[in-house]
Amino acid sequence: MNPGDRVRVDRADRTYEGVLLPSSTDEQFVVKLEGGYNVGVSRDGADVSVLEEAVYEIDSNGDGDGDSDDETTTDDTDVDSAVEFDDDLPTISLISTGGTIASTVDYRTGAVTAQFDAEDVLRAVPDLAGRANYRGRVVANILSENMEPPIWQDLAQAVHEEIENGADGVVVMHGTDTMQYSASALSFMLETPVPIVFTGSQRSADRPSSDNVMNAVSAVEAAKSDCAEVLVCMHASESDDVCALHRGTRVRKNHTSRRDAFETVGAQPLGTVDYHNETVSFRRDYQQRGEVDLERSDALESDVELLKFTPGMDPAFLDVVEGADGLVIEGTGLGHVHTDLIPRIEELVADGTTVVMTSQCLEGRVCDRVYDTGRDLLDAGVIEAGDTLPGTAKVKLMWALANEESVAETMQTSIAGELQERSVPWE
Amino acid sequence: MNPGDRVRVDRADRTYEGVLLPSSTDEQFVVKLEGGYNVGVSRDGADVSVLEEAVYEIDSNGDGDGDSDDETTTDDTDVDSAVEFDDDLPTISLISTGGTIASTVDYRTGAVTAQFDAEDVLRAVPDLAGRANYRGRVVANILSENMEPPIWQDLAQAVHEEIENGADGVVVMHGTDTMQYSASALSFMLETPVPIVFTGSQRSADRPSSDNVMNAVSAVEAAKSDCAEVLVCMHASESDDVCALHRGTRVRKNHTSRRDAFETVGAQPLGTVDYHNETVSFRRDYQQRGEVDLERSDALESDVELLKFTPGMDPAFLDVVEGADGLVIEGTGLGHVHTDLIPRIEELVADGTTVVMTSQCLEGRVCDRVYDTGRDLLDAGVIEAGDTLPGTAKVKLMWALANEESVAETMQTSIAGELQERSVPWE
Repeated sequence: MNPGDRVRVDRADRTYEGVLLPSSTDEQFVVKLEGGYNVGVSRDGADVSVLEEAVYEIDSNGDGDGDSDDETTTDDTDVDSAVEFDDDLPTISLISTGGTIASTVDYRTGAVTAQFDAEDVLRAVPDLAGRANYRGRVVANILSENMEPPIWQDLAQAVHEEIENGADGVVVMHGTDTMQYSASALSFMLETPVPIVFTGSQRSADRPSSDNVMNAVSAVEAAKSDCAEVLVCMHASESDDVCALHRGTRVRKNHTSRRDAFETVGAQPLGTVDYHNETVSFRRDYQQRGEVDLERSDALESDVELLKFTPGMDPAFLDVVEGADGLVIEGTGLGHVHTDLIPRIEELVADGTTVVMTSQCLEGRVCDRVYDTGRDLLDAGVIEAGDTLPGTAKVKLMWALANEESVAETMQTSIAGELQERSVPWE
Repeated sequence: MNPGDRVRVDRADRTYEGVLLPSSTDEQFVVKLEGGYNVGVSRDGADVSVLEEAVYEIDSNGDGDGDSDDETTTDDTDVDSAVEFDDDLPTISLISTGGTIASTVDYRTGAVTAQFDAEDVLRAVPDLAGRANYRGRVVANILSENMEPPIWQDLAQAVHEEIENGADGVVVMHGTDTMQYSASALSFMLETPVPIVFTGSQRSADRPSSDNVMNAVSAVEAAKSDCAEVLVCMHASESDDVCALHRGTRVRKNHTSRRDAFETVGAQPLGTVDYHNETVSFRRDYQQRGEVDLERSDALESDVELLKFTPGMDPAFLDVVEGADGLVIEGTGLGHVHTDLIPRIEELVADGTTVVMTSQCLEGRVCDRVYDTGRDLLDAGVIEAGDTLPGTAKVKLMWALANEESVAETMQTSIAGELQERSVPWE
């Protein structure tokens, strides 16, 4: 029984049929079901039968026909020539952190936790061939809901090393659940002379509607572009034609399941990748390749929380952050909470917690000069984060507390495009 | 010195110039500044000088010219005839809870905390004349960030009484910060044979860009319509042409300051009011006037919290809800949290807390059958709320725990249009 085999697993009155995947644990089988999703089944007490053995030949010449005949060809999609370093092509580092898009790669290569090399990547997504020289690297293999600040630091270090070692661009494969938080983290942690492009997949590779190939190919094209920023590259619409390029600090997963779930909040995306023409274009100014030197400041103050205020909220939530370094509040409207909470917030500030206000409206700036509640919050020492998205503000505050002297000023200044609107709430 | 006078207030090195407003407290002056916003200044130690006395004549015939000459007219916008009960017009109850739109009314009538009558309303917004017979009522006079579940109950009772006493429609004037929560609350608490229309104002009356008149007039037109649902009526665009009618359970304030801040999430609004043509039209089916009998079930379980999960969240937030009746989690993606939190959630459920999953994506259904984390959450006893908005889910859970036997089934069933998408996350 090998990965790739079609199997049936019976356990505890339930039956799963699908393709056996390589698993990172000894405790369970992972089966890719018909529907395209993976299920983990405990090995303990499970009956497994192989329905069909995998017939898996490496398409070593990348012509897509699955054989390895001796075609002589100058086709530059030829895998062998791509895997051999091509001086005429840029070098792109592919870094995996896990998630649906990485599980695709894993499925075909078996490289779940190990370093994966150029050949693995090209086998997984043959369309990548001929576009770049590739280097592969695994930083984590987690579901992205399990992403944690220390992994952001590992990721920043890995990206930094790759760029230092000559990568002309970096593609980070990441689960979609928390991609916006990780992209924000890298936006603050790294000054980069080359593109750093996050991509992921809303539908796994086995499904006809999978977005993984187009997203991966588009991310590589974006990583070859002139835009030296941290970007998120995902489907721009439900069609397989254009990917959007979002600034890492302004992007949000705005739908649970659609392929075009990711949107730039309050603006058009920074740019697009036309999948068929292989052209990358930008709508607004961006940081050019080589404009800044590579620099990493990846310290984080981890004791920072985000709290969303809703009517009737138990004030005891504020007790949890007693003694914390930072608190981001997701208030209502222009940046408000129930007036009764303000004295408690004032105490937190007095005790040394930096409290930052954002809005659950998501679009538009907070402005606490307008109404009484806001003025009282400012008097209590709360810092306004403009139109910084609440999740981005949390990541930024973790970073600012560890790296900047004036946290208040930093939170009100755009470091990586996170502040977008001008400061007039009644335009 | 009287409300309406133009004054200068000097206090503690700061100077405020503007129009003196009636104030609900003896402790401070409230001054409407040039910019259109109100500022509260403590009376203690303040120097006030009147720059210009108010010249305020009641336009008793409502013809807009400000005099009270003896014009004989059959114009049906005549205030006197409107204030006298007109058998040919429907009766609309205007209920005020506070907020920017109500402060407009207060400013001109002085009726800040008192019951206000038809004449007050027409003086405040003369454009309302001739459209209906009006009854006025004040339930609260608060900034809406201070809205609390007990006031939802007062409001439900007031609306219920107004309808019982023959109102053909109800308009609720409400601050915009938490309007969506209150509209959700009434959507669950009341079965209504007539329209209940929330409206508010993003810019106060003194500002050229004020939206209060158009929103109030459009809300009255919607309250006269055939749609017996709880609606939110606010500007549909930045122009003064069309108001959108949103279902109370699907609406969200999506911008801190724009006049068209309110949007129906994941769909077009249910209907529109053309301000100039005075026509109300609907895009989809709705509950017709008279289709159901008036019924009120306004019990609420107040010990229900909402918690937004973000990477690095302190698990201690879950301790705050120990022993609570309910918890709504705003998870990532299809409805996930860090795997480490799941055992604690399982304990909460075992201890009797109803835990409901929603998504911070806002659009699209949660679906916890797809990935391991989700299946573990379902095994822990978490209930999926489909595509119910997180804030709406909190209000609904408060209501369901107090009124419904099967809370799990209720949370997965659309009671008032809060569930919108079909149950297929990979369409």
